[in-house]
Amino acid sequence: MRTFRIAMVQMNPTVGDLGGNVRRILRWLREARKAKPDLVAFPELAVTGYPPEDLLLKPKFVEDNRCALNEVVRAAKDVVAVVGYVGQGDSAGHHPPSSPVVAAGRHDIYNAAALLAGGRLVTTYAKRHLPNYGVFDESRYFTPGRRLPLVTINGTAVAVNICEDIWLPHGPTRRQAAAGAEIIVNINASPFHLGKSRSREQMLATRARDNGVIVTYTNMVGGQDELVFDGHSVVLDHTGDLVARAKGFEEDLLVVDLNVEAVARSRSAGGRAPRTEPPAAMSVERVVLGPKPRKKQSRVVAPVEPLADPLDEVYEALTIGVRDYVKKNGFRHVLIGLSGGIDSALTAAIAVDALGADNVLGLFMPSPYTSRESREDTIELVRRLAIRMKTLSISPTFKTYLRTLDGVFAGAKADTTEENLQARIRGNLLMALSNKFGHLVLTTGNKSEMSVGYATLYGDMAGGFAVIKDVPKTMVYELAHRRNRRGGQPVIPKRIIDRAPTAELRDNQKDEDSLPPYAVLDPILKAYVEDDRSVEEMVDMGFDRRTVLRVVALVDRSEYKRRQAPVGIKITHRGLGKDRRMPVTNGYQGM
Amino acid sequence: MRTFRIAMVQMNPTVGDLGGNVRRILRWLREARKAKPDLVAFPELAVTGYPPEDLLLKPKFVEDNRCALNEVVRAAKDVVAVVGYVGQGDSAGHHPPSSPVVAAGRHDIYNAAALLAGGRLVTTYAKRHLPNYGVFDESRYFTPGRRLPLVTINGTAVAVNICEDIWLPHGPTRRQAAAGAEIIVNINASPFHLGKSRSREQMLATRARDNGVIVTYTNMVGGQDELVFDGHSVVLDHTGDLVARAKGFEEDLLVVDLNVEAVARSRSAGGRAPRTEPPAAMSVERVVLGPKPRKKQSRVVAPVEPLADPLDEVYEALTIGVRDYVKKNGFRHVLIGLSGGIDSALTAAIAVDALGADNVLGLFMPSPYTSRESREDTIELVRRLAIRMKTLSISPTFKTYLRTLDGVFAGAKADTTEENLQARIRGNLLMALSNKFGHLVLTTGNKSEMSVGYATLYGDMAGGFAVIKDVPKTMVYELAHRRNRRGGQPVIPKRIIDRAPTAELRDNQKDEDSLPPYAVLDPILKAYVEDDRSVEEMVDMGFDRRTVLRVVALVDRSEYKRRQAPVGIKITHRGLGKDRRMPVTNGYQGM
Repeated sequence: MRTFRIAMVQMNPTVGDLGGNVRRILRWLREARKAKPDLVAFPELAVTGYPPEDLLLKPKFVEDNRCALNEVVRAAKDVVAVVGYVGQGDSAGHHPPSSPVVAAGRHDIYNAAALLAGGRLVTTYAKRHLPNYGVFDESRYFTPGRRLPLVTINGTAVAVNICEDIWLPHGPTRRQAAAGAEIIVNINASPFHLGKSRSREQMLATRARDNGVIVTYTNMVGGQDELVFDGHSVVLDHTGDLVARAKGFEEDLLVVDLNVEAVARSRSAGGRAPRTEPPAAMSVERVVLGPKPRKKQSRVVAPVEPLADPLDEVYEALTIGVRDYVKKNGFRHVLIGLSGGIDSALTAAIAVDALGADNVLGLFMPSPYTSRESREDTIELVRRLAIRMKTLSISPTFKTYLRTLDGVFAGAKADTTEENLQARIRGNLLMALSNKFGHLVLTTGNKSEMSVGYATLYGDMAGGFAVIKDVPKTMVYELAHRRNRRGGQPVIPKRIIDRAPTAELRDNQKDEDSLPPYAVLDPILKAYVEDDRSVEEMVDMGFDRRTVLRVVALVDRSEYKRRQAPVGIKITHRGLGKDRRMPVTNGYQGM
Repeated sequence: MRTFRIAMVQMNPTVGDLGGNVRRILRWLREARKAKPDLVAFPELAVTGYPPEDLLLKPKFVEDNRCALNEVVRAAKDVVAVVGYVGQGDSAGHHPPSSPVVAAGRHDIYNAAALLAGGRLVTTYAKRHLPNYGVFDESRYFTPGRRLPLVTINGTAVAVNICEDIWLPHGPTRRQAAAGAEIIVNINASPFHLGKSRSREQMLATRARDNGVIVTYTNMVGGQDELVFDGHSVVLDHTGDLVARAKGFEEDLLVVDLNVEAVARSRSAGGRAPRTEPPAAMSVERVVLGPKPRKKQSRVVAPVEPLADPLDEVYEALTIGVRDYVKKNGFRHVLIGLSGGIDSALTAAIAVDALGADNVLGLFMPSPYTSRESREDTIELVRRLAIRMKTLSISPTFKTYLRTLDGVFAGAKADTTEENLQARIRGNLLMALSNKFGHLVLTTGNKSEMSVGYATLYGDMAGGFAVIKDVPKTMVYELAHRRNRRGGQPVIPKRIIDRAPTAELRDNQKDEDSLPPYAVLDPILKAYVEDDRSVEEMVDMGFDRRTVLRVVALVDRSEYKRRQAPVGIKITHRGLGKDRRMPVTNGYQGM
């Protein structure tokens, strides 16, 4: 039986760290080589990390990326490999410049895949479809590719394409399969959001079946600023059946023997595979490497790692997001302001899972409004998580501020100013410890708060990384329950979960004094912030008009706060970062 | 002599304020009508303001924009007008969807110009070339247009195109002129940067001459978040000569009689104008309105407003940028922390010019490190600007913080932690006054500081709008001198300009203890931050290698601060906002 052995390297590069990424590629290449694969696949832009953003505008960076690739080329003497990098000059396909403002000496660059064999760069494929929506800005940097190399490796016809290329039914996959490709090597840097691992596999299965071709999907893994790549590399056979799946949220090497004979058999038997090539501006170029199938000693049994429950995937995404942000930015320790509330408790639990209890420091900063329960629950949380904690009272500083402001505030009533001051003292104390001892401050605000602006700029919003910024409050509770059910003693004390949420910035304050109940607020926020629903549509969905109008106004008015918020992990299909680019100055009163 | 009278409305819309923008359009339409023009031109996206950003993803916003346009259509009964709006459905040109992830019910939208006459929408043109570099994200939203309407109005052939379309030598202008257009009505929202008014006119003159066509360029004016539109609408005749220019940095109506006969004469005499239409995928469609030239009572004499010196333009841009941010966001008063230094002095002067002295409040917040000179100079500045000032000492609060932190800091040496604390107390006091009384806080950091991270997050960086964020320190001095030479008493005391810059956060501190002299720093920052030069290139330019390496490291390490900085006005060709999108997690050590 004719088979083709692919080794898929699901790796975790760091954006910009070309040297580190190449070392990582070479290490995995050595590991992969042991399986004697016909081909080793690395993710999209494995050399540079994804997304390199405006590093791509530096000609020296593009040049250095090419030098980094050359190291890999030289190492790939006895192996065929596909590696994502930034192409320039070596990817054909003329395209008129899209902008008249081209920096001197700058040339078109491509999101490219190099095919390496025998210590040389055999050919390249450049991504055809450049995503420029959501978190993506690829049209800012890249020129779309025009060439379609079809490479026969040890007797099997292989075509490479990249990420977005396979999401489109009319993309290159169709033409590549029609031109004879038996295997599509799709390389990826596909950011996670809730439920994506499943919808992605559905799409890949459909694409494989529609084109009668084996699809191998090699994804990146790890965190990069607001993005998390979830791994879950997969192989689907030509009927759309799942053949193998790599782990989620960690590096992995997936070695699979692909049954190419079945593809060929199915094609000669006729069936649904496209017989004619659709018209396209892309030209197919044929390359042959090692013309005969290699004899295999034995078949490998490829794993099908399970997909976790979607909510557990979110927890994993948050964990790897924190770990990678902290480590890739050169930090070891994190500092978290603990209030006795659910948000800071969940954030601390995630931090402990990401970094270990020794690397997490809690700071409890009580005021006269801090309840006994908050104090007790914080102490209990700290005990269960086995982290260290410091306590600093904000009362003396709060009093001094009020004395300082006494003259200018004379006659004015107490309002949110005094509440914000307390939050800002806490922010300052966290930053003081961070400055003195080098901890990264993790903020604890959730998506519901961040959306309606129920957060103090420079107060509880102060910090380097906003862990649960994209997690709605109702999901914060679900995640806390999940974490508690994981076995062993529940880490988050029950009372923290059960108590009514409060900022404790004045007596008997409850979140629900200022906001609709979260069970009402969160679906409205999803409709408005994530799905761009109008007020009428939300009312039609059954929400109370007054509540909707109030929420919409709160969201619109707090754009300036979000603009100054720290980066945080995207876990929904529309986060509050690069996904959502609203003007601050915005007169839209539309309903 | 056959002439064509155009009225160009250089207006200042507000992003999203559809109702307000329509009222403004109708008011200008009434005003323009008095001149009995053949055509009235409004800027690009006059209905929505520019850039509407992710408002464009709301189907209701696009629908409301269309309703807003309809109000203008109905009002344009006895006049022909070109108005920028968001087109949907009514602009032909099929295009495959660029993204598989299209929200349900979303359709392609266009950056369009409506041609209105006789109370109906006669035809539309959709922008062909969508800028997606620098501050622009148009490919995120718009589909490029395919149609080229050529409209004969009162016997003169007129073609419309939009902004970027005219920057490209191979853009629609060429084809429109070849198809017979005598006048190009180019409508714009062209953001200001230093020197742009001049380079833009050079380009327009070249385009007019190359195509033997009259170019009318109607620009937007005003501030929108980080962008300022400078106005300076112009008309160039078919030989590239300047015929008329509107004012800079304010609304204006430019009425010009265009000598169309000269265009026709020059064409029949032959010459350089393109005789053959270049091959293109765009189809020309002809429309005729009012077939005969109208009799004019008298010729209008169009003004040629002077272009100010480039540095004076920067000052104007900063002034209108502040005024529009403050007013369009519903504020009246601003609050500025005054230190006795040049940055806060210049910021205060700009604020007074933008808003009037009555609307500017200074806050002086001395510490034991504050010098006598700083105090005296601040008082003198306040006197000359005739603004109010409050004084709040930070010393008691600083002492209380230190006492609070005494235990956790035991044994640690004083470092920048204590300096940052002082800056953060000041930030908190400014925010407290802002929260209590509703002032907008203007921050005072310059581009040099913001680039190297010589600024305290949540301290001097705390505020709603960063006025001189894109002004290098050396230019801060130049602008201060300019402002002082403007006539009357110099507003910025000489000693503020002459003293060595200091943050006064410890004894005898000077900026040059931490940074290279600004005369050295600023050119390096320009090369690195604005021009993407590599270390080797900067060394070749004559800069000291060690200094360059130090500056590069400071810039790279402070990305996280800039990510949390308030919005500020772009005045260079590459600001620190949407122009520059660097990853925070960034392992690039490239030189």
